[in-house]
Amino acid sequence: MATLKVPSQVPSPAEDSEQLRKAFQGWGTNEDLIISILAHRNAAQRKLIHETYSQTYGEDLLTDLDKELSSDFERAVVLWTLGPAERDAFLVNEATKRLTKNNWILMEIASTRSSLDLFKAKQAYQARFKRSIEDVAYHTSGDIRKLLVPLVGTFRYDGDEVNMILAKSEAKLLHEKIAEKAYNHEDLLRVITTRSKAQLNATLNHYNNEFGNEIDKDLETDSDDEYLNLLRATIKSLTYPEKYFEELLRLAINKTGTDEWALTRVVTTRAEVDLQKIAEEYQKRNSVPLDRAIANDTSGDYQKILLALMGRDD
Amino acid sequence: MATLKVPSQVPSPAEDSEQLRKAFQGWGTNEDLIISILAHRNAAQRKLIHETYSQTYGEDLLTDLDKELSSDFERAVVLWTLGPAERDAFLVNEATKRLTKNNWILMEIASTRSSLDLFKAKQAYQARFKRSIEDVAYHTSGDIRKLLVPLVGTFRYDGDEVNMILAKSEAKLLHEKIAEKAYNHEDLLRVITTRSKAQLNATLNHYNNEFGNEIDKDLETDSDDEYLNLLRATIKSLTYPEKYFEELLRLAINKTGTDEWALTRVVTTRAEVDLQKIAEEYQKRNSVPLDRAIANDTSGDYQKILLALMGRDD
Repeated sequence: MATLKVPSQVPSPAEDSEQLRKAFQGWGTNEDLIISILAHRNAAQRKLIHETYSQTYGEDLLTDLDKELSSDFERAVVLWTLGPAERDAFLVNEATKRLTKNNWILMEIASTRSSLDLFKAKQAYQARFKRSIEDVAYHTSGDIRKLLVPLVGTFRYDGDEVNMILAKSEAKLLHEKIAEKAYNHEDLLRVITTRSKAQLNATLNHYNNEFGNEIDKDLETDSDDEYLNLLRATIKSLTYPEKYFEELLRLAINKTGTDEWALTRVVTTRAEVDLQKIAEEYQKRNSVPLDRAIANDTSGDYQKILLALMGRDD
Repeated sequence: MATLKVPSQVPSPAEDSEQLRKAFQGWGTNEDLIISILAHRNAAQRKLIHETYSQTYGEDLLTDLDKELSSDFERAVVLWTLGPAERDAFLVNEATKRLTKNNWILMEIASTRSSLDLFKAKQAYQARFKRSIEDVAYHTSGDIRKLLVPLVGTFRYDGDEVNMILAKSEAKLLHEKIAEKAYNHEDLLRVITTRSKAQLNATLNHYNNEFGNEIDKDLETDSDDEYLNLLRATIKSLTYPEKYFEELLRLAINKTGTDEWALTRVVTTRAEVDLQKIAEEYQKRNSVPLDRAIANDTSGDYQKILLALMGRDD
């Protein structure tokens, strides 16, 4: 379900590093060469290139990329070149900055990564920023904090086993709390933030069967309520991540002026995971192939790397 | 997306015919042998077996199956052995009989088959039953007839091209008619029964974007209205066939006593098409793998052939 295309014969990390070094030298930068290498290596291969480059030239590849490139293209190349855990740490850090402050990023990372990947992101964040992701969650306030702190803190069971009796009773519980408009009730938050994704999905299926509406519809009472919107997005990203990301992309692309910040994040974080599935969802929901929609809304090297990560630069 | 498993080395039609003949002879019938052959041959291979059997033994394979087998297992083997067009003709004929009368079958065949496959089903029906499928549609009445006649009669454009301006204007049109509760309005029916599936999907996406609800929700005004239910099922089966079939299976399996009639129809008509996708949809919506749900609800040879057609008899 990944879109990343890696050639069957990959040059050695030393060769790739040498080519990257060449791309940085002389008059101007050879962006096409950078894309042709980095956008066609998987996480393990990029890590080796990163290490080899540092050892060979005594400089950090990311620092050199930062020096040579700029704006949207730079952010895409840097985010992509990072490993998944370091990238998540980077995104969380961005989301705490004044200009790019965004509670959704924390929710997205906590909800759409596997338990182990979330754990690795937490380690990477600690190692780099000398504080914990949980601490970031604590720095929010009100209901949003009530949701984010356990969401980020739980090491969710990742398996497929489902307890149907529990699913029934918790569907009833969720329905009661929602009927009472107790959207921030601790029992409701406990179910959403601690149950395995498979269990939560079973619970929400029962909810739908038993009470006639999807939970998302029942929570759609006030589209201006920031907490309710975040809660709905949390539920969607836990149970239907490809639909969550499709909606993010739809909003990013349809926005006047394109939201490159979100577009780059989704493409770079999902290209090795489920971007194929997200693209299918996108085409079904928008009647336009995702790569064509992205091509129409972007240009230059930024467009080239996004399409390359979608496996569409041949 | 098919679930049918065909071995890499397939015996000749003559060998398969001989084995089937053996399965019918002597004391009792060898059901396992029948399953091991027929449930692992594709439509073209089954057609050759059917022809070879007739030529070799001077009897019709289907007649012999009919003589040797009984009840749910028989219907499953016969439906499966038929080619897709002959099977659809058989199903339409069943649906016109007093005890198994069902307008949904006609809708299902008209909506979920490709234009060419629907055309072939019409030819097969004419050849075998000496009347037209359109004639069957005309023998319904009221609003149901207004829907079924053009649904069955249209040779829909099957391509992917979509006209977005048209999608917008027709989304508006559908919304107006639904707001007026003019569910049987000729313009609404024209859009649903004649537009390509891709175009209709684009229209319904616009509808959802523009008016805040899926059309299915807006048509969910009276769950006892037979016409409205058929209209909603038509729209779902045209745009999300895997969800339509998932729901059919869910209802068939969850019913007290299991609806074998529907279960057999879905498994035999989709095993060479999209049963894999339907099974994924089923598991997501019910938190149980489809093959396990079917195994729990069926038994004996009937269970064996259904699981074989799902690729799960190894």
